[in-house]
Amino acid sequence: MTEYSIGVDLGGTNLRAAAISGTGEMIEKISGRAQLSAGRDTVVDDMVNAIRTLQEKIGGHLAGVGIGVPGFILVKEGKIIGSNNLPEFEDYPIRDVIEQKLGERVILENDANAAALGEKWIGAGRDVDDLVLLTLGTGIGGGIISHGDVLRGYLGMAGEIGHMTVVPSGNPCGCGNHGCLEKHASATAIAAMGRMLQLGDSITSEGVYELAAQGNERARMIFSSVGTALGIAIATLVNIFNYPLYLLSGGPLPAWEFFAPAMFAEVERRSYTYREAKTRIEKAELGSEAGLYGAAYLPLLDQAVHA
Amino acid sequence: MTEYSIGVDLGGTNLRAAAISGTGEMIEKISGRAQLSAGRDTVVDDMVNAIRTLQEKIGGHLAGVGIGVPGFILVKEGKIIGSNNLPEFEDYPIRDVIEQKLGERVILENDANAAALGEKWIGAGRDVDDLVLLTLGTGIGGGIISHGDVLRGYLGMAGEIGHMTVVPSGNPCGCGNHGCLEKHASATAIAAMGRMLQLGDSITSEGVYELAAQGNERARMIFSSVGTALGIAIATLVNIFNYPLYLLSGGPLPAWEFFAPAMFAEVERRSYTYREAKTRIEKAELGSEAGLYGAAYLPLLDQAVHA
Repeated sequence: MTEYSIGVDLGGTNLRAAAISGTGEMIEKISGRAQLSAGRDTVVDDMVNAIRTLQEKIGGHLAGVGIGVPGFILVKEGKIIGSNNLPEFEDYPIRDVIEQKLGERVILENDANAAALGEKWIGAGRDVDDLVLLTLGTGIGGGIISHGDVLRGYLGMAGEIGHMTVVPSGNPCGCGNHGCLEKHASATAIAAMGRMLQLGDSITSEGVYELAAQGNERARMIFSSVGTALGIAIATLVNIFNYPLYLLSGGPLPAWEFFAPAMFAEVERRSYTYREAKTRIEKAELGSEAGLYGAAYLPLLDQAVHA
Repeated sequence: MTEYSIGVDLGGTNLRAAAISGTGEMIEKISGRAQLSAGRDTVVDDMVNAIRTLQEKIGGHLAGVGIGVPGFILVKEGKIIGSNNLPEFEDYPIRDVIEQKLGERVILENDANAAALGEKWIGAGRDVDDLVLLTLGTGIGGGIISHGDVLRGYLGMAGEIGHMTVVPSGNPCGCGNHGCLEKHASATAIAAMGRMLQLGDSITSEGVYELAAQGNERARMIFSSVGTALGIAIATLVNIFNYPLYLLSGGPLPAWEFFAPAMFAEVERRSYTYREAKTRIEKAELGSEAGLYGAAYLPLLDQAVHA
């Protein structure tokens, strides 16, 4: 009988669910759109249906379900307390509702934490016990793995690396701060800088990348600025954690050659620890699948802890 | 028979050693000057003699010795790899030398990590398992306690909070960076700002505090600036760790009333987590004794881990 768990990744755009074996092989995957405009109940039903469909197809023993969602999560309570993408789910007992509908154990986790756990399980971090993952997207998510498990803090809100201050009087952020990393290095920030530098009224981060690849100097300045912001943040992370591995993932990763030189230069000069302690700063390996793997790993890890 | 351990605190100025019971009572303490100018061997002999003197006085069972020293430490190797105060000890097998002379188990640790552990054991953090301590002195040290033990990183260099970048183009630091927290909020930084603002050619941080207490506007600006720098760093720590408690200790602590308002204002606006998660930012309780308690706690904790 197949022993497996199910990972769900609910984003602002997509809803995906995957059945994954205890050794990290993906058995079956379902992908669809997150029908957020249709309301909370529709999204919950879509999640439950996707999980049931996987269960029926596979028919083995389900160890549990992990769900990754964007936003600030109270892990113990199974609630989202703040999410730009999922405002309708704030303070709603999403975990308990899904648990009751399914009759299965469900663990709710921040999507970047889930992605970090996926990379640690079978991705770029499989050879270490401690790592930090930065996911560059609409915002910047962060996941910290400490001794093989997610570093959650006392309410499960740890790892908000996108809201580290990197420019004290920098761009304003919806969180109330100025100069958050995600306002200077996310895909959204790259596109906004592209518009500021008149590279096109509706230019995207991909568009800025294409221009940089063609040799456009202003596009390259943007990625240099992104690299500097990332470097300031990563240097501080290295100084705080002295972990062996820092991973980057997300849409802007193809632009590595354009932002990485400034990033490494910044980390080099801002971190004595980096210079002394042979720290690796690398691309993550699992791309957008990391969150699915990590979400599926959550119930397995929880079993191990409570065994 | 008394079961106890010995904590040693070697600083740039003082050398102290204390015998502390397994329940955290100080049995006996020896304080003296750190004779750094007399050379490394003299300092090592002074440490060994202080430990032996305590052993002879008490005569019970010594569980082990912990030594806190300033600088970057390789805990497993028992070496100091970088220290402004103790350059003569860099790459010298200080732990092994002392272990051999004593015939007792010795653990070497960064002094701020030791202080954080002391506060967690019997100080302001005794009711929590996770905390961050910032020690404001010549520099700024940091100690992070995670699940009741020091967060060390993979080489024992974690917790370098004084070298977090808080002003990207700020004051230069000996570590190679610009804008390190310790160049904007340590006692040394306070004194330097006092001289910049012409409060006296040889003014100290205490002198700046006295002027602030008398209502001097420029002295108050300095502490406001200190509070802002601390707030930027602590907001980032809160966003990263979501721990329940952040502690401050060190010489400038009496100036709390002058720097704390700016600090809290900065954390409040820069951390969504702080606003949502009732985080405590408080004065540490053990003062300069914290490092002695924490150093003495190291062998006890190590016993528990390896039991």
